[in-house]
Amino acid sequence: MELLKARWAEGKFVCVGLDSEYSKIPGHILKKNFSVANGLVEFNRAIVEATHDIVCAYKPNLAFYANHGAEGIDALWRTLHEIPAIGLGQVPVILDAKFGDIGNTNNGYAEFAFDYLHADAVTVHNYLGKEAMKPFIDRKDNGVIVLCRTSNPGAGEFQDLKHHGAKLYRVVARHIADEWNKNGNCAVVAGATYPEELAEIRQIVGNMPILIPGIGAQGGEVEKTVVAGQDKNGQGIIVNSSRGIIFASSGKDFAEAARRETQKLHDLINQFRKGGVL
Amino acid sequence: MELLKARWAEGKFVCVGLDSEYSKIPGHILKKNFSVANGLVEFNRAIVEATHDIVCAYKPNLAFYANHGAEGIDALWRTLHEIPAIGLGQVPVILDAKFGDIGNTNNGYAEFAFDYLHADAVTVHNYLGKEAMKPFIDRKDNGVIVLCRTSNPGAGEFQDLKHHGAKLYRVVARHIADEWNKNGNCAVVAGATYPEELAEIRQIVGNMPILIPGIGAQGGEVEKTVVAGQDKNGQGIIVNSSRGIIFASSGKDFAEAARRETQKLHDLINQFRKGGVL
Repeated sequence: MELLKARWAEGKFVCVGLDSEYSKIPGHILKKNFSVANGLVEFNRAIVEATHDIVCAYKPNLAFYANHGAEGIDALWRTLHEIPAIGLGQVPVILDAKFGDIGNTNNGYAEFAFDYLHADAVTVHNYLGKEAMKPFIDRKDNGVIVLCRTSNPGAGEFQDLKHHGAKLYRVVARHIADEWNKNGNCAVVAGATYPEELAEIRQIVGNMPILIPGIGAQGGEVEKTVVAGQDKNGQGIIVNSSRGIIFASSGKDFAEAARRETQKLHDLINQFRKGGVL
Repeated sequence: MELLKARWAEGKFVCVGLDSEYSKIPGHILKKNFSVANGLVEFNRAIVEATHDIVCAYKPNLAFYANHGAEGIDALWRTLHEIPAIGLGQVPVILDAKFGDIGNTNNGYAEFAFDYLHADAVTVHNYLGKEAMKPFIDRKDNGVIVLCRTSNPGAGEFQDLKHHGAKLYRVVARHIADEWNKNGNCAVVAGATYPEELAEIRQIVGNMPILIPGIGAQGGEVEKTVVAGQDKNGQGIIVNSSRGIIFASSGKDFAEAARRETQKLHDLINQFRKGGVL
């Protein structure tokens, strides 16, 4: 949380999603005899080197590493340990794994995320309730980012169900803010593709951080997102873009293209947020 | 599903949870120079060899492998590929990972579970809705087991919220049965620790399989579970016990003890289910 706030204080709100789908990595960086892990790590290294001074966080999604099995998990470990801006603790890393199991089992996931990978925060499901999420919440120095309103087209199937007139995502947001956040290390997820719901969630959670996926490839608009998502101080948002940044170009200029798209998003956010223009 | 039904037809309903917490593995099987992965695989091998003829499935939980990083994932791969009763497709394997992300991302998890590990089925969260779960549901030859009512003490926080008078887990069960199961490859999770809810869910899902965790260490009772969970034919249940079986003894007799506990649970289930006694 401290790392994040330090970046926010510098006007940095972009989170780059390291959803490094191997088949989309530009061919020229895959040197002869390169393993899949080497390819993933070198791609991530180039993206981080090109963007680290204008972002508030990186967010690798576990799925894009797990599909390569043990080798992919090794690549994820190396991404978090061997790339200086990340490994030296300059920019916080959110492991996007959407964990959610019973308490005894979540201990294992907390060990994986925080002790093995050294991620700073992790995304989790809400369905099993606060009691089950204790192994994450009890790690006071790590962030726990709880799914509230997801960015996908079918998000409403259960999230829009009404309980005494309040949709489920609102009840979830209320519980996270009032009950889960005793250690001050919780945040929520609300998709950029649903700006009205995002605004409602901001009303409920006060100054808690909101991780906002869905910008770029998924269609979320920056102005609506910033206006709906920012807190009273024009902060509180972690605006994620993955494919729109890391695969902006499939050519030799992929890192510069990623920098350009990150800068563009950074500038737009600061154009629209309260007291934004730096 | 076919593998599972073949085991049910033989009166086998016990699922052994391979939650092989490394620190609890009996010391005598950890030979000199054994890696963590070797320890996990040899422990699992002994458990499977001792129990495979009286179970309907194995269920390794990802957390107990992921906490060892890439090496743990390798141990999980080896468990699914190198132990004959599993690797040769005799007994189906449920990867308990509780995945749940947006569609594009779930492709990676489906690849991890089905293409890399060769699991037969996987557990998933419901929160993102059917649209997001398409990468799992579209795998017609693989099972998709959706969280409905979990076994943990705090399960009710969101699962008991009422929508037009029906608690959330009931609405979820209805959606899975009516909307998600077009390929006939879905199942639901309902904990043994809540037999009344389990009975309600059985009413809703008809003959769909129900994975039932919470027997043994978590306190669920076998008679109530079987009576509440079985379908009209006295089948339809996957009754999981993890710690109660695999860590029944910490001595040299751990495999025999696991066999004994599995047999005991197997006998109890068949004592209480319709047309059960074999």
